[in-house]
Amino acid sequence: MARVRKTLRLRVRAGDTDFTGFVFNPRVIEWFSVGRIELLRSRGITLLGDGRLTVDGEPLGVSLVVGEVYARFQAPIRFDDQISLQTEVTEVRDKTIKFSFTVRRILDREVLATGASTSVCIDRETRRSSKIPPRISELLTP
Amino acid sequence: MARVRKTLRLRVRAGDTDFTGFVFNPRVIEWFSVGRIELLRSRGITLLGDGRLTVDGEPLGVSLVVGEVYARFQAPIRFDDQISLQTEVTEVRDKTIKFSFTVRRILDREVLATGASTSVCIDRETRRSSKIPPRISELLTP
Amino acid sequence: MARVRKTLRLRVRAGDTDFTGFVFNPRVIEWFSVGRIELLRSRGITLLGDGRLTVDGEPLGVSLVVGEVYARFQAPIRFDDQISLQTEVTEVRDKTIKFSFTVRRILDREVLATGASTSVCIDRETRRSSKIPPRISELLTP
Amino acid sequence: MARVRKTLRLRVRAGDTDFTGFVFNPRVIEWFSVGRIELLRSRGITLLGDGRLTVDGEPLGVSLVVGEVYARFQAPIRFDDQISLQTEVTEVRDKTIKFSFTVRRILDREVLATGASTSVCIDRETRRSSKIPPRISELLTP
Repeated sequence: MARVRKTLRLRVRAGDTDFTGFVFNPRVIEWFSVGRIELLRSRGITLLGDGRLTVDGEPLGVSLVVGEVYARFQAPIRFDDQISLQTEVTEVRDKTIKFSFTVRRILDREVLATGASTSVCIDRETRRSSKIPPRISELLTP
Repeated sequence: MARVRKTLRLRVRAGDTDFTGFVFNPRVIEWFSVGRIELLRSRGITLLGDGRLTVDGEPLGVSLVVGEVYARFQAPIRFDDQISLQTEVTEVRDKTIKFSFTVRRILDREVLATGASTSVCIDRETRRSSKIPPRISELLTP
Repeated sequence: MARVRKTLRLRVRAGDTDFTGFVFNPRVIEWFSVGRIELLRSRGITLLGDGRLTVDGEPLGVSLVVGEVYARFQAPIRFDDQISLQTEVTEVRDKTIKFSFTVRRILDREVLATGASTSVCIDRETRRSSKIPPRISELLTP
Repeated sequence: MARVRKTLRLRVRAGDTDFTGFVFNPRVIEWFSVGRIELLRSRGITLLGDGRLTVDGEPLGVSLVVGEVYARFQAPIRFDDQISLQTEVTEVRDKTIKFSFTVRRILDREVLATGASTSVCIDRETRRSSKIPPRISELLTP
């Protein structure tokens, strides 16, 4: 069964690193945000300027907010490294979507970091957790 | 004549530095943002969550947006350095406010960076430049 | 038994937020970095510009690198919110130190985010994991 | 005469924006850093992990550090906007290199921001300003 995943290529920027000479760990969490957004885009789901999800140009009344995030840093990541970031939907539940992330050095495919996050569907009006619209669930389920 | 200025103390964070071992220059521009906001706060002007200026708890229909910024980096700034950031209003015009910034190492008062920025008053409805409300001008003029 | 912990007060900066109007989740992970560094400082442990740990002005041959981090976001955090960040050492093992984090809104003590991280002791020469120097373990054990 | 310039395409990330709904101005200064590094790379000049310039795989004893930066923000930049960043060498002097930057929205070519910066050549040993190696000057002069 085809997985719902998206792979991006990134170049480590100066601003991603810190004085130790390696990537500052919160920047990896920022990459996870980019990975989620691009995975959604690859399935036809975009975010409006107010955070609302949009499918086929039609805004829905819900947003996704990150409820949990985890990252494991397995090897140092350096300035100018070319990396791949693979984002995958690992679970779609009633109100939450789980993603996993794998960061590899492109040169030798070494895994540099892995991670996971859970996004919670939020109703824009009530600001409370809400059912994921069926259209979104379908697009994110293999 | 008393100047409208505000001095903050900051500690250089890991995330402010890059792989060269020194502060990544855009982080200094971020400090300028902190300096402006705290100078405004010290005069009783705060920003609402939508960016509107608020005086004495009363929201106004305008925001300030940065139109120009300049910085000069005079000496390397290191992780863990304790620095002072002095922000000063240098000019209040019809629709713009100019600020200047001085970053010093607290230990020896050495000037590490200086800068300037111009904020433009924007009408929240039309999104066009707008006259600075008299209440704001008064609070920011010595 | 006294716990090894440190509480900081922070003001949410513009740069901590994103277009949704709330704090961008990786910024909370950056605060965890600040919390760890200030907890270490409160115990007399500082970091040199090359990342080496220093106790009583004496540099050691080891660094701490973040091996894992986890965060849970429980309530939206807004621009200008005043927050407290409590960092605590939860475990000191042979080669690793575990920290926990609690972010609260100061106004009403509501818990906004919690988290945990594991730092691994690394030998500066071999770049491999290494035993935590006894001096560090003592300072971080209640 | 051919100009020394490089154009990149970027997508505005969530972390580039702030609570006002638009790009946080220091992020544009971060893009300038990316533009400089990619322009250098396009001419065969890369940066080592310690900041040293490298040409044809041969490390030189100098680094470039940003001495001044200026930016003018002409129109709001939004989350998810696709932008182009054009970086150009505008002057190569004895010890300094000047760059200019133009950020455009790709959709309609509207100029969103412009800027300029000056990099100073620094000797890695003395940490003082130093002559730009002839090899670098040649590569950056049309």
